Amino acid sequence: MGSFTHIDDKNNPTMVDVSHKDETLREAVASSKIFLPLEILEHFCDGEIFSKKGPVLQTAIIAGTMAAKKTHDLIPFCHQLNLDSVKINISKFDTGLDIVAITKTRGPTGVEMEALVACQVAALTVYDMCKGLSQKMEIGSCHLVKKTGGKSDYKKV
Amino acid sequence: MGSFTHIDDKNNPTMVDVSHKDETLREAVASSKIFLPLEILEHFCDGEIFSKKGPVLQTAIIAGTMAAKKTHDLIPFCHQLNLDSVKINISKFDTGLDIVAITKTRGPTGVEMEALVACQVAALTVYDMCKGLSQKMEIGSCHLVKKTGGKSDYKKV
Amino acid sequence: MGSFTHIDDKNNPTMVDVSHKDETLREAVASSKIFLPLEILEHFCDGEIFSKKGPVLQTAIIAGTMAAKKTHDLIPFCHQLNLDSVKINISKFDTGLDIVAITKTRGPTGVEMEALVACQVAALTVYDMCKGLSQKMEIGSCHLVKKTGGKSDYKKV
Amino acid sequence: MGSFTHIDDKNNPTMVDVSHKDETLREAVASSKIFLPLEILEHFCDGEIFSKKGPVLQTAIIAGTMAAKKTHDLIPFCHQLNLDSVKINISKFDTGLDIVAITKTRGPTGVEMEALVACQVAALTVYDMCKGLSQKMEIGSCHLVKKTGGKSDYKKV
Amino acid sequence: MGSFTHIDDKNNPTMVDVSHKDETLREAVASSKIFLPLEILEHFCDGEIFSKKGPVLQTAIIAGTMAAKKTHDLIPFCHQLNLDSVKINISKFDTGLDIVAITKTRGPTGVEMEALVACQVAALTVYDMCKGLSQKMEIGSCHLVKKTGGKSDYKKV
Amino acid sequence: MGSFTHIDDKNNPTMVDVSHKDETLREAVASSKIFLPLEILEHFCDGEIFSKKGPVLQTAIIAGTMAAKKTHDLIPFCHQLNLDSVKINISKFDTGLDIVAITKTRGPTGVEMEALVACQVAALTVYDMCKGLSQKMEIGSCHLVKKTGGKSDYKKV
Repeated sequence: MGSFTHIDDKNNPTMVDVSHKDETLREAVASSKIFLPLEILEHFCDGEIFSKKGPVLQTAIIAGTMAAKKTHDLIPFCHQLNLDSVKINISKFDTGLDIVAITKTRGPTGVEMEALVACQVAALTVYDMCKGLSQKMEIGSCHLVKKTGGKSDYKKV
Repeated sequence: MGSFTHIDDKNNPTMVDVSHKDETLREAVASSKIFLPLEILEHFCDGEIFSKKGPVLQTAIIAGTMAAKKTHDLIPFCHQLNLDSVKINISKFDTGLDIVAITKTRGPTGVEMEALVACQVAALTVYDMCKGLSQKMEIGSCHLVKKTGGKSDYKKV
Repeated sequence: MGSFTHIDDKNNPTMVDVSHKDETLREAVASSKIFLPLEILEHFCDGEIFSKKGPVLQTAIIAGTMAAKKTHDLIPFCHQLNLDSVKINISKFDTGLDIVAITKTRGPTGVEMEALVACQVAALTVYDMCKGLSQKMEIGSCHLVKKTGGKSDYKKV
Repeated sequence: MGSFTHIDDKNNPTMVDVSHKDETLREAVASSKIFLPLEILEHFCDGEIFSKKGPVLQTAIIAGTMAAKKTHDLIPFCHQLNLDSVKINISKFDTGLDIVAITKTRGPTGVEMEALVACQVAALTVYDMCKGLSQKMEIGSCHLVKKTGGKSDYKKV
Repeated sequence: MGSFTHIDDKNNPTMVDVSHKDETLREAVASSKIFLPLEILEHFCDGEIFSKKGPVLQTAIIAGTMAAKKTHDLIPFCHQLNLDSVKINISKFDTGLDIVAITKTRGPTGVEMEALVACQVAALTVYDMCKGLSQKMEIGSCHLVKKTGGKSDYKKV
Repeated sequence: MGSFTHIDDKNNPTMVDVSHKDETLREAVASSKIFLPLEILEHFCDGEIFSKKGPVLQTAIIAGTMAAKKTHDLIPFCHQLNLDSVKINISKFDTGLDIVAITKTRGPTGVEMEALVACQVAALTVYDMCKGLSQKMEIGSCHLVKKTGGKSDYKKV
């Protein structure tokens, strides 16, 4: 970490070899936001938005969870791993929704990509469920909040 | 469009029936950004970033294209459709990368979700390829730029 | 239809060639039931069962819809087709839940397998969401209710 | 197990966290039946039915085995796990076929959903292979027979 | 065809845009061979090899057919298309097996990759089914035999 | 190994039970070749071929790596396993390209199928990227080079 000195000499893409790394409990937290126009936000009621396609937040949580399990199939050099837990929480703020995903595994490599994928697919699902009302949405502020259990922990300051 | 009056009476989630809609040429353009810290940006050279996992932008374009073809498998109520074209362009700006995706199909429903998925998975792949250097990245500003070919066109103002 | 006279002479498995068949609007209705013990049924309230994994029926509808889109990936000789519509309805009867799925496409071959897959994966999802309370569930009575739009219609008597 | 007291306070869907559970050898047995009309059953010969799509039981066993490996991709809150074994046996009784699936893993959570999915996709494949002769089939009696290796064993009485 | 003059100016990977191409009936034939040592070939009997994992050729035909439907998910810039037909034939020659796959679609782009994928996954499945007896197998001679229905036909001379 | 004496008495297909096998570090090396005509080979320059679809070798390496992770979804009786490493190297020889794949896991069963799948999907991707110039390509000489870490090692002589 911290340098690109081990680049394959032909600059070809490659997966990092983790066969020598211990299997430890690894956890990651990521978050993203989706900014929504008033004509969508005014449908928020009792912790849910009901669009003509159904309950928006519940559908987004399910989609984000299922996508987290497909991370290695979406991101070319992500390792396969069996997630012990995926938790997605979506809450409203004044101009949109806050999405937080927590992922855990016991394995040789971190789960930050799984948490980030969960957030982004949940956000995209909110978009799809609400786009019949307005396309003026924006997904933003997607980042890693913290990760623990690997060689070096990370916490966003 | 424009109202949620046709909500299923039990508020259950559901796919919109498009069996009565004509198959027309539909196109969508979406974009997103990934903000990168200096320690990553300084590796940008000749239109590419070479990380220890390989060429970042080329890998991201491939991943985004493949993900666009999986959109219906990620977003619960997206219809399946056969994409005629996916183009992803990634260019550098002062604090990160601009990602633009253009999708086309001849079908009964729009391809904006496919373009948005392409952008976001390309951005996530940039994240994964560069995270060995720094985790201080943020994916943002993901939105629909325009869509044409459906009942109503859209263009972000 | 109606005879097995065209068996491949070596009895090898094969997909039926539909390249000469017209694309017509095809629709299928299938249903299945899941029988639930009292300790699960007594949690039914306002059209939903809330288990510790969340809303059972809504999750089952989402899972069944997504599975319908994967039918050709589950059943070896099913043709790929793009579904125009999947509707799943789940309602309570005295000893369990009735699941009905309606599928539509405009294509050269029928969508009964898609409707049957939607029902069965919805039922399996109910099972998974409720099994923390009791494993005394049974999925049964899964059959085609009707199909239209192909060479010969079908209606269960 | 045995109560729904730990429901997420907003009733949102969620995956159970198994990161604290030991990896043990877990096994499950499930079964289902497919009831077949005479015009299909009379093609049963030497332990196999040959339809115009090929050998029905062998194709169903392959499809059921492959589907068991996709269980986490079909059932939203199923954990990913690597199956050590999937065995499917199909035998004839007077009005149809009996399907039994046995699944094994060494992991932190049970494999009953994998066994149930294997049975149901095998049954659906029988349906697809035979539907050229008659659609008067019914899939039923799908349940867990027993499971061992977890916190509490189960055996259907 | 016939030159690489339209290369994207940054040499980035990209899918070809086929939105202006007519949907025509397209067919492709591909073949490959798997060379087998005597200790495997001597198990060939009545058009099939029975390994301890079951009937080799039938399993390979099923796997090749299913893989053809996944071609766009394996080959990054292959377009999605709905196959009207996949036929795989496997026959013995003196030192191995000949695999031929025929694919058809009605679409805007050819199906040669689908036929090639079908052959290669069928061959790999033969390998997997027989490797308990010997690993001295070789898969070779995989090529396109002919294709029709596009802008220019092809026939291997 | 070495005989087919344990065939299921009905000759039905089945997955081998590995629940009693230890998890060890397993590694496999496989290779294949793709023979290219002069009109393609003359585009080889600085370790890469640039076709109108983009960089051929880099795209092939990404596709082969992603396919290795899907091996259990392509080959019916392959066990699921989480790969610790996939490395693909492609180099030019006088009449084509040499593809070598190295796969590693810590698990109860070998990774030779993963290495073979990686080689073949990389080769098929080269085919797809170059077929705009000529279809006179042939994929051949695909075999296992060596495997270590299981009950018995293998090395091709």
